[in-house]
Amino acid sequence: MPTIDTPEVPLKSSAAPEYNSTKGLVVDVALRVLLFAAALVAIIVLVTSKQTKLIPVAPGLAVPLAAKFTQSPAFIYFIAALSVACLYSIITVALSVLALMRGGVSTKMQFQFVMFDALLLGIVAAATGAAGGVSYVAFKGNSHTRWNKICNTYDSFCFHIASSLLLSLISSIALLLLVWLSLYVLSKKIASR
Amino acid sequence: MPTIDTPEVPLKSSAAPEYNSTKGLVVDVALRVLLFAAALVAIIVLVTSKQTKLIPVAPGLAVPLAAKFTQSPAFIYFIAALSVACLYSIITVALSVLALMRGGVSTKMQFQFVMFDALLLGIVAAATGAAGGVSYVAFKGNSHTRWNKICNTYDSFCFHIASSLLLSLISSIALLLLVWLSLYVLSKKIASR
Repeated sequence: MPTIDTPEVPLKSSAAPEYNSTKGLVVDVALRVLLFAAALVAIIVLVTSKQTKLIPVAPGLAVPLAAKFTQSPAFIYFIAALSVACLYSIITVALSVLALMRGGVSTKMQFQFVMFDALLLGIVAAATGAAGGVSYVAFKGNSHTRWNKICNTYDSFCFHIASSLLLSLISSIALLLLVWLSLYVLSKKIASR
Repeated sequence: MPTIDTPEVPLKSSAAPEYNSTKGLVVDVALRVLLFAAALVAIIVLVTSKQTKLIPVAPGLAVPLAAKFTQSPAFIYFIAALSVACLYSIITVALSVLALMRGGVSTKMQFQFVMFDALLLGIVAAATGAAGGVSYVAFKGNSHTRWNKICNTYDSFCFHIASSLLLSLISSIALLLLVWLSLYVLSKKIASR
């Protein structure tokens, strides 16, 4: 009987480092750096989007009117969501690099990372949708509600917004890929045991 | 020597059903049913939102004008995204119930489920954001772009939209909880081995 019981203990404790997740962790850090870069550039591009134009208000009278992102609550939420994503990516890159130097990330830490990744995916996707919905009205207008398009006047403002939207879409995709990657690594860890 | 080698095989094969995920699977099915109900009711509420009002176009002249969700591309995307979520929840509820009757879900199947859950979370959150952004303009208007509010005229239409938005927010939260639940079950499976 004792000869059968003894191998159980080393088998259970040696099971932990069976699957080497270092490769997955390098891709993870690369995706987080991409997320950081995309979110940061999106914020900068949107913040610098202000454009002032002379708008005719009466025959022979034109006043300078500025288009700023602060004029729409959707863009303010957009900036807030991307700022959170940017800050989050800095923290997680630092933690991931630390884990990489120590040789690997623990399952518990990976579980916590991917929980926040999924939460941020929802927040950033909603922000992209909100800003995109309002931008579409600004770009095309809406004849039914008599909302006039403004992008024919504020061309540079709209170009900034479109670039910012594209970058936040990239951020959302990076977050989705991060969730998928973590799931893949977790399922590999289960399969290897 | 043979007395030490033999217990290794039953130990590895018996490791699979160590963590009982039936309880998690019941919560999973409940969340998917909630997702289905919320998405379906959101679609029905938005589709039935049409409201016709007499709008004065000139002194002494008023024409009946209808407000419909098809007049805004953001709401069309919203309906499309929620329809996908609704269809997806039907399929996954069926598959989950089948797995529950067989006694449990395989890790591979759970991995595939949560991948699609995360993708749908992004899609539904973006749809909620897009519809929410446009609805906010309809509710409050925007003096800077001279977009007039329409909810003071079309009150029942806006009430339908607001209810639909709330339900799609519940759908998004249900999807996020589904991702979190699957991650929890996966990490428990790792910890129990």
